[in-house]
Amino acid sequence: MSQYVIALDAMGGDHAPEAIVEGALRALRKYADIDILLAGPEERLKAMVAGAQDVRERIGILNATQVIEMDESPMLAVRTKKDSSMVVAMNAVKEGRSAAAVSAGSTGAVLACGMFRVGRIPGVERPALAPVLPGLKNRFMLIDSGANVDCQPKYLLQFGLMGSVYMKNVLDVEQPRVGLVNIGSEAEKGNKLTKETYALMEKQTGYAFAGNCEARDVFTGDYDVVVADGFDGNVILKHTEGLANVLFSMLREEMMGSLRTKIGAALAKPAFRKIKRRMDYNTVGGAPLLGVNGAVVKAHGSSGAEAIENAIAQARRMVEGDVVGKIRSGLSSLCEE
Amino acid sequence: MSQYVIALDAMGGDHAPEAIVEGALRALRKYADIDILLAGPEERLKAMVAGAQDVRERIGILNATQVIEMDESPMLAVRTKKDSSMVVAMNAVKEGRSAAAVSAGSTGAVLACGMFRVGRIPGVERPALAPVLPGLKNRFMLIDSGANVDCQPKYLLQFGLMGSVYMKNVLDVEQPRVGLVNIGSEAEKGNKLTKETYALMEKQTGYAFAGNCEARDVFTGDYDVVVADGFDGNVILKHTEGLANVLFSMLREEMMGSLRTKIGAALAKPAFRKIKRRMDYNTVGGAPLLGVNGAVVKAHGSSGAEAIENAIAQARRMVEGDVVGKIRSGLSSLCEE
Repeated sequence: MSQYVIALDAMGGDHAPEAIVEGALRALRKYADIDILLAGPEERLKAMVAGAQDVRERIGILNATQVIEMDESPMLAVRTKKDSSMVVAMNAVKEGRSAAAVSAGSTGAVLACGMFRVGRIPGVERPALAPVLPGLKNRFMLIDSGANVDCQPKYLLQFGLMGSVYMKNVLDVEQPRVGLVNIGSEAEKGNKLTKETYALMEKQTGYAFAGNCEARDVFTGDYDVVVADGFDGNVILKHTEGLANVLFSMLREEMMGSLRTKIGAALAKPAFRKIKRRMDYNTVGGAPLLGVNGAVVKAHGSSGAEAIENAIAQARRMVEGDVVGKIRSGLSSLCEE
Repeated sequence: MSQYVIALDAMGGDHAPEAIVEGALRALRKYADIDILLAGPEERLKAMVAGAQDVRERIGILNATQVIEMDESPMLAVRTKKDSSMVVAMNAVKEGRSAAAVSAGSTGAVLACGMFRVGRIPGVERPALAPVLPGLKNRFMLIDSGANVDCQPKYLLQFGLMGSVYMKNVLDVEQPRVGLVNIGSEAEKGNKLTKETYALMEKQTGYAFAGNCEARDVFTGDYDVVVADGFDGNVILKHTEGLANVLFSMLREEMMGSLRTKIGAALAKPAFRKIKRRMDYNTVGGAPLLGVNGAVVKAHGSSGAEAIENAIAQARRMVEGDVVGKIRSGLSSLCEE
């Protein structure tokens, strides 16, 4: 048995199971120290990996006869579809057979599975979904990006710790700067939630609080961890996606306006392609669900094999860096009663 | 005396008083039906307009010896600097000497002046700052963009009405579609505030509620009025500014990467310039402060003469369209209690 065992929901995502299995094979070839447990219909998965003789012995199959669909009620699905590929993969973490789980299935279901199958790290108020995004100067983590609305200050206080532990131990940022999303830079700015959170973050000693992060500075890269209530985080995430599309649509429209700019657009195409790649989810991997008792990574629903490979690599690094253990031990430094 | 009298804070903004006075002269030349009351140091302003003989007689001067600076505490400044150009301009509205006031001064001070000098329309819970922004298909209003944090559902309910009245009577949108910023399109999505607001908006008959507006659709132009808590609205506004800068910086970086893309960038320059202009505050004017008992427009701090001219035109349209009266009479259709 290898050093790291990672459970993979083979049936989650738009391109399952083909892209998922292909991503698993790629990851196995790249990382000699991992084993992968594929959760899904046994016979079908067996047939899919039969040809991969070089890594076949490092693949385990966890039979699962059901699939959680994208449009199902997450809570209900997780409760009733006990034999779904996602639940089976998460159970492997719960039961200690794997240290990590990766799924490209429904976000809501991954959250529910994380909470109720894998379970929280003792002391964690709320697990948070925390994608790593491409800032101008460097990558940064947005936590929470939508798992928890109506947050309390103590949740946000912990998000700062969880994000800091991740950036330090997975992405090797020496001393992650943690910013609190707010509508002004001064301590007294903001709403009730941010004012109270600011006071708590200032007092703690578990991470480097760098003050309020004005919304205009979220993507500059001046912060390594950007903390927000899940409602605001989700608004930022979705608005980013929407605005980038709108700006590029406007640019396309204006560029088609004259022959000169049309030629310019054709010549500049490689630059546009690079931007697209820079902003692309597939190169970044997935979003970790932090605060649960295992390395759980939610890959994007549209993930191809490359994204799955990256999400597996990310889960592997989370285990290697002992993110779960370090969150657990860091909680005591937050000194909130 | 002309049909519309507009008070102008001659000393507010980065380029005051020169750009402000120049903007006033331009507006007077363009609109024969307005008079302008310039608030500021009498002798200095008199000298500045002395040469404009064609419009001189339509300019009144309200002497004001103080200026509210950008870094002052808004509440304190508005209370203590009774002879400041902003307070004097707002008092003209309060006293019925003008129907509108325009200022490019500190946003916080304009809000405080609107609330405590001009006063609320009876029945309005909270005035809101509501810029009109360039969407992909059409312009839309973002209300509230930062005047009120920790909003209650009934505030947001009224924001929908105020925005709808403005878009209909100032920008001639026949039946403005009002959307509620949320993290999902279904009625049951969101946090406590948006869920309760959704229920209220669905019941009212004062405007066309078009459901939840997911953050990714804010700029598409599918909604004419986008309603949000002031914290979220401000996050959206500032993040838009920040992200646009980051994306264009990334694009510039990538375009400098090769000779081919450099040439492309040079040829495409006019298209970039058009986008910049499309996104530019100066062409749009200012943000109305809706819910106060007069047509109050906050022009951008960096406004040049063109932006001031546009903000005056906007204030004029607000008076012409009787935005204040229509908000007052529309409140009864909200039936919230």
